Amino acid sequence: MPAPFQSLAAFRTLLSTLPGPDAGAVQAATARNGQLTKPPGALGRLEDVAIWVAGWQGREKPVADAPQVVIFAANHGVAARGVSAFPPEVTVQMVANFRHGGAAINQLSRCFGAAMTVHALDLDHPTADFTTDAAMTETEVVAALATGWDAVDPGAHLLVTGEMGIGNTTSAAAVAAAILGGTADDWVGRGTGVDDAGLARKSAIVAAGLARHLEAASDPLQALRRLGGREIAAMAGAIARARAERIPVILDGFICCAAALVLDRAAPGALDHCIAGHVSAEGAHPRLLAALGKAPLLSLGLRLGEGSGAALALGVVQGAVACHSGMATFAEAGVSGA
Amino acid sequence: MPAPFQSLAAFRTLLSTLPGPDAGAVQAATARNGQLTKPPGALGRLEDVAIWVAGWQGREKPVADAPQVVIFAANHGVAARGVSAFPPEVTVQMVANFRHGGAAINQLSRCFGAAMTVHALDLDHPTADFTTDAAMTETEVVAALATGWDAVDPGAHLLVTGEMGIGNTTSAAAVAAAILGGTADDWVGRGTGVDDAGLARKSAIVAAGLARHLEAASDPLQALRRLGGREIAAMAGAIARARAERIPVILDGFICCAAALVLDRAAPGALDHCIAGHVSAEGAHPRLLAALGKAPLLSLGLRLGEGSGAALALGVVQGAVACHSGMATFAEAGVSGA
Repeated sequence: MPAPFQSLAAFRTLLSTLPGPDAGAVQAATARNGQLTKPPGALGRLEDVAIWVAGWQGREKPVADAPQVVIFAANHGVAARGVSAFPPEVTVQMVANFRHGGAAINQLSRCFGAAMTVHALDLDHPTADFTTDAAMTETEVVAALATGWDAVDPGAHLLVTGEMGIGNTTSAAAVAAAILGGTADDWVGRGTGVDDAGLARKSAIVAAGLARHLEAASDPLQALRRLGGREIAAMAGAIARARAERIPVILDGFICCAAALVLDRAAPGALDHCIAGHVSAEGAHPRLLAALGKAPLLSLGLRLGEGSGAALALGVVQGAVACHSGMATFAEAGVSGA
Repeated sequence: MPAPFQSLAAFRTLLSTLPGPDAGAVQAATARNGQLTKPPGALGRLEDVAIWVAGWQGREKPVADAPQVVIFAANHGVAARGVSAFPPEVTVQMVANFRHGGAAINQLSRCFGAAMTVHALDLDHPTADFTTDAAMTETEVVAALATGWDAVDPGAHLLVTGEMGIGNTTSAAAVAAAILGGTADDWVGRGTGVDDAGLARKSAIVAAGLARHLEAASDPLQALRRLGGREIAAMAGAIARARAERIPVILDGFICCAAALVLDRAAPGALDHCIAGHVSAEGAHPRLLAALGKAPLLSLGLRLGEGSGAALALGVVQGAVACHSGMATFAEAGVSGA
């Protein structure tokens, strides 16, 4: 379906009308979980994950064998200011790498049977430098949200959203700071691996962006438009679309969570269909996850983006779903209870 | 190959002659890792895991698509004393469940493409009650070690060892306490979910076992024989065989790690081919992992046994290997470096 919004106001309204989980499926899956051949609670968090997936999918026995990974790539005006360890042309080069199957996310998608698509958003036109202008016009941010919305396969069992965009930890830090408060230093990190001088530049640029936009950017969707990037908006659009389709989403790292934060603060509960795939090594990611109220499934020191941490967590979610949906009950197996 | 030992003394000697990793493969994999299209270190612990697998497999590009899961089941004399929330007959019932594909480990093995085999060790003859006798004779413990040794497929890319045995957290606690010291209370936990009275019974039984065997059981292999169980010995045999074949092993929870501890203390470095798959909710597992010097890949509150936590970690190891072996280098992809 074409994106059912043509303005930020319409997107905001849409967010407040999206569906919740199926209470009957949650109840049926919870009852089933209690009958499976294991001591009560012995699968730990896997039990909660399986029941949560069941609720969103509206099935007593959830499924996870057809996940989708959508990757959005965009360029950032602030990348010209030395906020990354890599030059801006790496964005388009990495899009080619994604298309040829050579990136980490290609391997992880294949490993867990995910269909992966890559969406390059107007790479020849970076967003405006947010220290002097709004990063995007309303038309641009709505177009990016719609790209994300349209990218989701309504038949996917699970969704992972990932990104590529040299400079985008700087944009994500600015969005998080505008929405959640705190100083630039609280939210900037080393991204792809900047040195101390690069980190200081990032912090100064985020501070300048906040000074330029702070009042207007206290509104989450305006923070996205003024300080974010096209790939960040596209992830927000994809996460919203997944909610419309009741597809559970596995969130990735700092940049993905900044996109998710926009939805969360624009419409409370907008991330109830999302789980945190991992906590990354980007300094402010734990703080951002805490603001979202999400506990990560994995903590392995990843800081790559591309959806890689969330894609890795697909294995955990698939394991949880496989146990829930495939195990025998005590009665079926003739096993004595406790 | 038939197990090349017919006594504990021969097994002990064998342990000290097993091979180490391939230094050339470690060097080649490390060099390759530095050229892959990602910022240095951005895949966090996955990079270390892939290089570690490469070293044991002796390949620049490791493989992980043919893992093996071996499950050993046995009965324990102490199970008659009320140390479990489940009756002893559940061991044989769960073996039938494994064979019919209904247990959690069946689903996880299928999920990650592992070949799974189940080995029931003389279920009609529980080990002796270790509060009055040695749990096993030398003949019995050597036979169990040999069952584990023989169960490993030399062609497996990775190995997971799991167990089933009502009462076996009690045996594992006794083995850990005998080898590492501390009180019974330090090492007993709720296992399948005993109540406070059951926990007190477990602690008293472990204390009685330690009092009965402590001096002799300061030797790790004697601790295994006097306080352990057949499935614990079989896991130790399988882990040792994996070392002989240079197959990387993913350790499971408390009981598996108690088996591994026997090897570690019998021959320093005997677990260099092992990684901790997860930290379980069994109370003393973190302490046991610390004694082994192993940091778990996952922490999801599992406490099921069966190899389930290690099997879940197969997904992480497979993801690590897939990235390392499948990603393009900067040169291959034409991506600019930092």
